[in-house]
Amino acid sequence: MKSDSISVGIIGFGTVGTGTARILLENSALIRERCGFSVVLKGIADLDITRDRGIRVPDGVLTTDARALLNDPEIDIVVELMGGIHPAKDFMLEAVRNGKHVVTANKALLATEGSVIFAEAERAGVEVGFEASVAGGIPIIKVLREGLVANNIVAVYGIINGTSNYILTKMTEEKVEFSSALEEAQRLGYAEADPTFDIEGIDTAHKLTLIASLAYGIPLSFNAVYKEGITKITARDIEFASELGYKVKLLAITKASNGEVEMRVHPTMVPNEYLISKVDGVFNAVYVEGDAVGSTLYYGRGAGDMPTGSAVVADIVDIGKSIVHGVARRAPVVSPETASRRGIRRMEDIESMYYFRFSALDEPGVLSKISGILGANSISIVSVIQKGRRIGGSVPLVVLTHRARERNVLDALREIDALPVVSDRTLFIRVEGSEE
Amino acid sequence: MKSDSISVGIIGFGTVGTGTARILLENSALIRERCGFSVVLKGIADLDITRDRGIRVPDGVLTTDARALLNDPEIDIVVELMGGIHPAKDFMLEAVRNGKHVVTANKALLATEGSVIFAEAERAGVEVGFEASVAGGIPIIKVLREGLVANNIVAVYGIINGTSNYILTKMTEEKVEFSSALEEAQRLGYAEADPTFDIEGIDTAHKLTLIASLAYGIPLSFNAVYKEGITKITARDIEFASELGYKVKLLAITKASNGEVEMRVHPTMVPNEYLISKVDGVFNAVYVEGDAVGSTLYYGRGAGDMPTGSAVVADIVDIGKSIVHGVARRAPVVSPETASRRGIRRMEDIESMYYFRFSALDEPGVLSKISGILGANSISIVSVIQKGRRIGGSVPLVVLTHRARERNVLDALREIDALPVVSDRTLFIRVEGSEE
Repeated sequence: MKSDSISVGIIGFGTVGTGTARILLENSALIRERCGFSVVLKGIADLDITRDRGIRVPDGVLTTDARALLNDPEIDIVVELMGGIHPAKDFMLEAVRNGKHVVTANKALLATEGSVIFAEAERAGVEVGFEASVAGGIPIIKVLREGLVANNIVAVYGIINGTSNYILTKMTEEKVEFSSALEEAQRLGYAEADPTFDIEGIDTAHKLTLIASLAYGIPLSFNAVYKEGITKITARDIEFASELGYKVKLLAITKASNGEVEMRVHPTMVPNEYLISKVDGVFNAVYVEGDAVGSTLYYGRGAGDMPTGSAVVADIVDIGKSIVHGVARRAPVVSPETASRRGIRRMEDIESMYYFRFSALDEPGVLSKISGILGANSISIVSVIQKGRRIGGSVPLVVLTHRARERNVLDALREIDALPVVSDRTLFIRVEGSEE
Repeated sequence: MKSDSISVGIIGFGTVGTGTARILLENSALIRERCGFSVVLKGIADLDITRDRGIRVPDGVLTTDARALLNDPEIDIVVELMGGIHPAKDFMLEAVRNGKHVVTANKALLATEGSVIFAEAERAGVEVGFEASVAGGIPIIKVLREGLVANNIVAVYGIINGTSNYILTKMTEEKVEFSSALEEAQRLGYAEADPTFDIEGIDTAHKLTLIASLAYGIPLSFNAVYKEGITKITARDIEFASELGYKVKLLAITKASNGEVEMRVHPTMVPNEYLISKVDGVFNAVYVEGDAVGSTLYYGRGAGDMPTGSAVVADIVDIGKSIVHGVARRAPVVSPETASRRGIRRMEDIESMYYFRFSALDEPGVLSKISGILGANSISIVSVIQKGRRIGGSVPLVVLTHRARERNVLDALREIDALPVVSDRTLFIRVEGSEE
């Protein structure tokens, strides 16, 4: 049994570092009352320790020397909030080797290099907390690991990138194109100057990697995640989707069937009746279906200093309880040793309903040609929208399909896009919902 | 360090008992894989052990003697799923005194007699798990205790009674009256033959008692909860609400301000833009606002064998981890010793916006009289709806107000209802949302 306090060192005094420090300082009495021990903020390391972050940090806490925290024998938990791969990875490994527990919000690092870190933590007998790395303040990691521990996970659908969701919401509500919605997001600070990670689905895939690993006990497999961003979605597609009763969302999807796990990130048409379709702006939500619990959904802010700090501090407190009770590694971490033998389903093998927007010449017989090719590839049509007539010109022809196999869809589209009456590459969006 | 398995005895082989047993039996390999220890179902006690529940229970597990489980030295955790106050309370106390941890879904018992049970558990050094007692499969207790541990809770709003929510949803979607929606709920098994606990807000108040205690560290104070059911709501009120942009929901509300905690259950008009307004049918949802995390929402099935069983098993696993690691009482239980000194706000002192439906004679000057009395009681009007003309007859006059104090509202209504031009008691519904 240790004393009644634990000590924390934060590396990275940016947005989340500041939020975490603020919570530890301002809510310290509350945390002590709830847990029975104090969390002492022993140090904060950052290259810039002079900039005003709007909070008062006690004297002697700030340092430019991260290694001083990593080697401080009094520090129990190192909180890595600098982001990026290097030197974050080296700092985390050094902390772990020094016998310190680690808490991080660094999904990119964990998704790509997490196996090394978890294995090292396993060896060292320390915990790695990463609640803050997925869906900000929503305690989704805890929900998956503990709250739904009794369930075989049927599927997880997540809106877990606020930037993309803001852009799609803006495009939907104001009928503007992607580029102008992106500009607005950048102006408001919701998108970075280089927005690639967010709009190409990479950040979403990082988080999905962690979710899938927890849900299905598979190793962290970022490279196996199918990644498709939102840049090709047009205001017109969003309008057609709306006409058909759907919203377009960038979803992270993982589900298991026949011993295989699907992991995919792509724009998805979600029926208006689904609660997750109503999650707008920068908010995040994760829908989890378990075999016992059925449908559940978790909603909140996916980013920001205080929401993410809330998750960081929850991890600190959880690990703190283990420390105070002399029990390390109470919750199992994801590790190759415990990983199940489930395979990852190849993207061509998934099944989905589909939305197609064909750029077809407005000529007699075009629909018959296209639907003939779809039929030959075992793709059957639910509904067709053809708007505006422009004899001899190109008009959008929208088709919604029943459940089909991705491989067949790609084959059919290759054939269709080669038709002389088709003037441009067909845009397609996968569609969720039940078939009737 | 104990062995790598823990033993469980269930008292009560009804709906939830059956779901819990099914999960423990069918998902046992999964649970073992995730936690590193086995959960052994050692016994199930019920007066009726012959009825077919559709699951195969291993030989020797069923017994009609609950005390045999309470006194079995091999049983680590007693799961109380019989419901009701007696003998459930006696069984739980006996289990605790025998050094056994207890898991229960019995909100009525905990809300009214929980302090005794928690205090006894504190003395005995055992844990009391009650995740299943609030919002079925939604892990809201874990979220409040652990996931949001860093937050001062600003407010909690919950739809936590599926029966009431089903009835209100039915009334909204099909424009039927309360009585016929109730009949339908009874026919479908969503409401009991005597539906009092559900429709009068008592069940909701039981759950709110537990939520408020966790959120604000106050003692369990069921008697201090304001309770108002949904029986007075008419299809007409729901239609007026809809016209004003609101849904009518039975909400459990707790919030803190100026050192006082509000605890109230009543029909509430919720703006259509709020996600919680879209939670329909038998589903539950809990909105939690924290000072760090901001707005969050948790959604799922609030009842049923498997969803509630999911929560029971999550508690078993959590306590199992403590047992296996030789650490009891890792998460603090609600106990008078840790209770904060916050007072409970009296209902007359709360502030809210209000919807009034006056039954007024259609005469010149009536609105002026009514609004005069409202004004004199510091209640200011946002909007007025008066539909249909029936000179000399009685018509509904609907008024939406700005934020006002409940005491002033009650005073004003007493005065208004005494007017000769008012033919019936005024119906009022409290309204949530931001004022502009």
